[in-house]
Amino acid sequence: MTLAEKAALCTGASAWTTTPIERLGVPEMIVADGPHGLRRVPDVHVWGGDSLPATCFPTASCLASTWDVDLLHKMGETLAEECIALNVDVLLGPGANMKRSPLGGRNFEYFSEDPYLAGELAASLINGIQSKGVGTSLKHYTANNQEYQRFRISAEVDERTLREIYLPAFEKAVKQAQPWTVMCAYNKVNGTFASEHDELLNKILKDEWGFEGLVVSDWGAVRDRVASLKGGLDWQMPGPQDRDVQKVIEAVQSGALDEAVLNESVRRILRIVAKASETPKGGEFDVDAHHELARRIASEGMVLLKNNGILPLKAPQHIAVIGRSAMKAHFQGKGSSYINPTKVEVPFGALQNLADSAELSYAEGYPVDNSFRQDMIDEAAKLAQSADVAILYIALPSFKESEGYDRKDLGLTEQQIALIKAVAQVQSNTVVVLNNGAPVAMSDWIDNVAAVLEGWMMGQAGGAAIADILFGKINPSAKLAETFPRTLADTPAQGNWPGDAGVVRYGEGLLIGYRYYDAKEMPVQFPFGYGLSYTTFEYSNPAVSAEAFKDVDGVTVTVDVTNTGDVAGKEIVQIYVHDHQSILFRPEKELKGFAKVDLQPGETKTISIPLDFRAFALYHLDYKQWITEDGDFDILIAASAADIRHRITVSLESTVSLPCILDKESTVREWMADPRGKVVFQPYYEKLQDQARKRYRRSDGEEGRYASGGESGIDAMEMYNEMPVVSVLLFQRDQWSEHPEDILADLLEQVHRQEVPEI
Amino acid sequence: MTLAEKAALCTGASAWTTTPIERLGVPEMIVADGPHGLRRVPDVHVWGGDSLPATCFPTASCLASTWDVDLLHKMGETLAEECIALNVDVLLGPGANMKRSPLGGRNFEYFSEDPYLAGELAASLINGIQSKGVGTSLKHYTANNQEYQRFRISAEVDERTLREIYLPAFEKAVKQAQPWTVMCAYNKVNGTFASEHDELLNKILKDEWGFEGLVVSDWGAVRDRVASLKGGLDWQMPGPQDRDVQKVIEAVQSGALDEAVLNESVRRILRIVAKASETPKGGEFDVDAHHELARRIASEGMVLLKNNGILPLKAPQHIAVIGRSAMKAHFQGKGSSYINPTKVEVPFGALQNLADSAELSYAEGYPVDNSFRQDMIDEAAKLAQSADVAILYIALPSFKESEGYDRKDLGLTEQQIALIKAVAQVQSNTVVVLNNGAPVAMSDWIDNVAAVLEGWMMGQAGGAAIADILFGKINPSAKLAETFPRTLADTPAQGNWPGDAGVVRYGEGLLIGYRYYDAKEMPVQFPFGYGLSYTTFEYSNPAVSAEAFKDVDGVTVTVDVTNTGDVAGKEIVQIYVHDHQSILFRPEKELKGFAKVDLQPGETKTISIPLDFRAFALYHLDYKQWITEDGDFDILIAASAADIRHRITVSLESTVSLPCILDKESTVREWMADPRGKVVFQPYYEKLQDQARKRYRRSDGEEGRYASGGESGIDAMEMYNEMPVVSVLLFQRDQWSEHPEDILADLLEQVHRQEVPEI
Repeated sequence: MTLAEKAALCTGASAWTTTPIERLGVPEMIVADGPHGLRRVPDVHVWGGDSLPATCFPTASCLASTWDVDLLHKMGETLAEECIALNVDVLLGPGANMKRSPLGGRNFEYFSEDPYLAGELAASLINGIQSKGVGTSLKHYTANNQEYQRFRISAEVDERTLREIYLPAFEKAVKQAQPWTVMCAYNKVNGTFASEHDELLNKILKDEWGFEGLVVSDWGAVRDRVASLKGGLDWQMPGPQDRDVQKVIEAVQSGALDEAVLNESVRRILRIVAKASETPKGGEFDVDAHHELARRIASEGMVLLKNNGILPLKAPQHIAVIGRSAMKAHFQGKGSSYINPTKVEVPFGALQNLADSAELSYAEGYPVDNSFRQDMIDEAAKLAQSADVAILYIALPSFKESEGYDRKDLGLTEQQIALIKAVAQVQSNTVVVLNNGAPVAMSDWIDNVAAVLEGWMMGQAGGAAIADILFGKINPSAKLAETFPRTLADTPAQGNWPGDAGVVRYGEGLLIGYRYYDAKEMPVQFPFGYGLSYTTFEYSNPAVSAEAFKDVDGVTVTVDVTNTGDVAGKEIVQIYVHDHQSILFRPEKELKGFAKVDLQPGETKTISIPLDFRAFALYHLDYKQWITEDGDFDILIAASAADIRHRITVSLESTVSLPCILDKESTVREWMADPRGKVVFQPYYEKLQDQARKRYRRSDGEEGRYASGGESGIDAMEMYNEMPVVSVLLFQRDQWSEHPEDILADLLEQVHRQEVPEI
Repeated sequence: MTLAEKAALCTGASAWTTTPIERLGVPEMIVADGPHGLRRVPDVHVWGGDSLPATCFPTASCLASTWDVDLLHKMGETLAEECIALNVDVLLGPGANMKRSPLGGRNFEYFSEDPYLAGELAASLINGIQSKGVGTSLKHYTANNQEYQRFRISAEVDERTLREIYLPAFEKAVKQAQPWTVMCAYNKVNGTFASEHDELLNKILKDEWGFEGLVVSDWGAVRDRVASLKGGLDWQMPGPQDRDVQKVIEAVQSGALDEAVLNESVRRILRIVAKASETPKGGEFDVDAHHELARRIASEGMVLLKNNGILPLKAPQHIAVIGRSAMKAHFQGKGSSYINPTKVEVPFGALQNLADSAELSYAEGYPVDNSFRQDMIDEAAKLAQSADVAILYIALPSFKESEGYDRKDLGLTEQQIALIKAVAQVQSNTVVVLNNGAPVAMSDWIDNVAAVLEGWMMGQAGGAAIADILFGKINPSAKLAETFPRTLADTPAQGNWPGDAGVVRYGEGLLIGYRYYDAKEMPVQFPFGYGLSYTTFEYSNPAVSAEAFKDVDGVTVTVDVTNTGDVAGKEIVQIYVHDHQSILFRPEKELKGFAKVDLQPGETKTISIPLDFRAFALYHLDYKQWITEDGDFDILIAASAADIRHRITVSLESTVSLPCILDKESTVREWMADPRGKVVFQPYYEKLQDQARKRYRRSDGEEGRYASGGESGIDAMEMYNEMPVVSVLLFQRDQWSEHPEDILADLLEQVHRQEVPEI
């Protein structure tokens, strides 16, 4: 390949295609937006145009609430079939970013506030799609957690938080599913554009995780093409970008860019283009079957949040159906994921289908222009009063939630809140069905209503799924993949959101989602992992495969789950891990496993969930690796983050062999905690203890400077423990014949001399 | 001076003295620990030994609760008299660090969670001391907000938070009082030791604020003497440190250290030594008068937190006095500030003095060894039951609060809590008197008791001050200078405290203290600025000197305060400022002024509080300066942070002339907000608006990619507004004949060309 050909290959030829090289028979590869459906424009060489009809599945918030990896795999296969039919090689999704704040405008496209759950779901969806020979793009890598200034803001995230919160979903998806492509984010991470981030792209993604595919820019994310190639960004999109291609050529010619860097990107792109060309395209897909799958997924993802017993509906005679979204389904979000659906279930019609002879009346409830209309509220209330039950379909309007800008609050519109209150006041059997992509605040009205169903952005068939659940044709089984907070003020990022002056500080660190509410002991509207069913489940016989085990062996948790109600149902069992004691601060508990189990009334099944090394590990900056520590952990078997059913204490033996990292700033406590350090420092430690015990007692019996608080010397040792060795020795200088600096140098020499490399 | 003499001068000769140079007649200067009293060892050339008796005043938590700058000035004068009598040139205090978390072990030595209040108090105390020709040491500069790993931990604080929270108290004290010395902290700030921090010491403290004195290390804070000299640390303590002195000599000789740097430090030290020598030392101080002042300050600093009307006591016949600290006063904290008092008021005795003929009985209540002793509780409850009133003296033991290590929780001891509950159960007239240096959690027991007096670490005369308040000889007037939270989990730094792996991230940013509770809309036990009185106050006739004003002119707030009760009393009026709208995130409100007013029953006084430029300004990183913005502010006239009595809206006109900082990453919104940017970008903006309005509507009437959410184009513009100009132009590339990069270059050239320097 010529230099010009290589440079050209590394930038798209159009909005949706790679640059073909006819001379060498390298075909073009076609990509299309997703990820919960296919947004394939008619002419892939042109930016816009009505996209071709495709099945619009629920968005990721709803998908995640299924906690069903098999279902997501199935959905992936189905998406791939549509890609094949519509001649698309790579579907641009899924997104695996964390939901740092419920205000994130694009949260509806992301799975969860928990990296383990998001990673499992993303991996399964990717595996489903790729099992059919169609590629994916895992996005947006990484720390792209807001829309505000998303093209330029720098997400300031400490490395441990990156490693434990913002990277693991990507890591898991890459390791378990090898997506053909990974899409870099628009924003900067710690001052460097994600599109130029050598550490994130080359070192972590490619070298450490072993990513074999290509890295593509988010559309328009490249700011400096040469810098981005160096940083590990293989393929720039969209094209054409003749000027950038020329810059690459010139950089190689001038020596500013090593051609080997370009070659590596070329190789990665060619590999994926070749792989794509292996899957024959064309044909048709089964519109009805895909629609049915979309309906099933929607019904598995809708979360029943409140139910005073009114649901499932018991053959009402007159149903007041209120709210615009009953007639005009709100089933997806705005932005790059906007699908042209093959057909749409109208919620009102779907309800009528299942309502037998019941009379359904409709009131719009809230207007399309989002103005305040008391007359519509009055009309709705009047209708509700005359009915047996009122079903309120409430959709959060796009001005409150979309790609491209963040939400400003968690509220429904003023009209919608007033509508709910007015209806609930005259009709005790009021059911609220929500359509939205992220949590809304409910404290204003939830106590007034009989039931609430979180219907999410539910995809084209969701209107039918709502009816299925309301009438009990489907028993709801979904659970929240993100916390529903009481108020915006309660949320983890408040005070550090959305940043300003080009920077957003991730000040809450590890504490996003339930990790935060745990740490703050703060009540929430609905906890992570929460969801109701029409039946009940009991957990019994909790057990572990071993009470003591090695980190590399892991441990398997088993528990019997029994359906103790009258109808069949599915339960999502969650396993959280709590560390008793750690060298570093840790969240109170973290999700490390889950299972969804389908049970007939009275049926019991034993579920088994393995926990591996990473279920117990933390990322330690000083060692630059994941480590475990010997010690006790609690395994929490739970129905939600706030509903712990069983707690088993286990004991882990670490097999991690760590180098001695004692240095001149290490504290007395750190020397004594290090096996090699303790040996050599012990004599000094004992002298310090003597010193602390007898430390300076005033003649009148009072304690002097740094003396103990009671009768023992514990206080002074508490202080010494946190001091670097040289500092504490300097304060007791008359105790030592050598200068403290020399003592320290000698101690360090002793501990590091012992480091014989194991070969 | 020879090089050796210069190098020697820059390190102490002993634990408490400068190195004299006899050849040149440079005397030694003597320093001694403080700051709420004088800890002067008998032989200043020796580290330890019983310190000479000196008046132990209340510690800073109590001092700050007086909100009385005149009283602190008076205390300063008195401290200086003792320094003169005991031959001390410089008193090592006061401390002006922020209380980032109530867990900070040394919080009792610091004033407040609010930088404005801490700065005013520190400046006044310094001015008081220095008015008598005795020096001070403003400490610990800076971000030394915890004891955990305080010798090595790096406080990771973003620059704006440093400028607006952690520096202003130091800045105010330096500018208003010019302390003779400033003491650097032990810790690192953003990776660099405070003792070597060029930015903090040279650039900000010396150059920007105009600090004229010398910078001294905290005792043992120097880790690299040459690096610290370069960083602006003039004087190393304690001495002798022959090896370090030699290193300085060698560094100058080798050229590694510019002798000019050394000379500057020498000049600063000599100036202060000379100044110190001008004040004749010796004589005696008036022990009784100083004790009386300590008593008065204590009574002005103790905060009445709860009172159901039982206080002041109404001639009870039998008082049960319960708690060890009634007999053994707990009046100061452990560590470098530990004073050998001239005498100590025993709380029990002081109470008896004022109790006339009442019978006082005593039970110890909790043991010296902090074990759990039910028998002592039973004894105390029995005593309480037989009395008219029970007064519980509860002191937080030193193992829970001291210099050298942080607190682990906010609780009293288990014994103390059980004691309070047991006594309160049998005696409804239970009064709790607390001695502690920082907030304790009270939710377990506060509802059970009739009254709570926060007695702080109250100084040697505090035992009498308690009695004065309980019997109404003194009407309490203090208000909290820090929030009392409900629980530890509620506090701002939780999750980012105390750090690990050598780093503590100040993730809460600007939101410490009431700024945090405001932002989180979180209830607290007692808010900042709160305190009860035996009388009541009304605020009326709120007014401002101008409703519209220029930032440089400031504005003066006036309000009439009336004592509407039956006894004389003092009220502390607080002025907070709330910004309606800002270019950067701002706390909901910030304290910017206060006044304490003394009123007879029925008396009204008009108080007048000026607000200056800084009352409205914020620190902007991009401009690297304090800026104001045109716009409205609310002036809140308040009795506490949670008790806003009046709100006045004023309009500020900014006179700050800012350079154009538009660059290639500036967003559309930023271009349109900049007066120069708007002029040149306007034509493009209008085209974008057109584009957004007509943006791609699908043939079926649905909206396409990035289309609007309703009938208007507002959504697309919302997204464009947050995009850099080049990105948004690239997305609309077919609209422009020139390449977007060239358009941007041209736009930037135009706005920056206009920057004609004003001369």
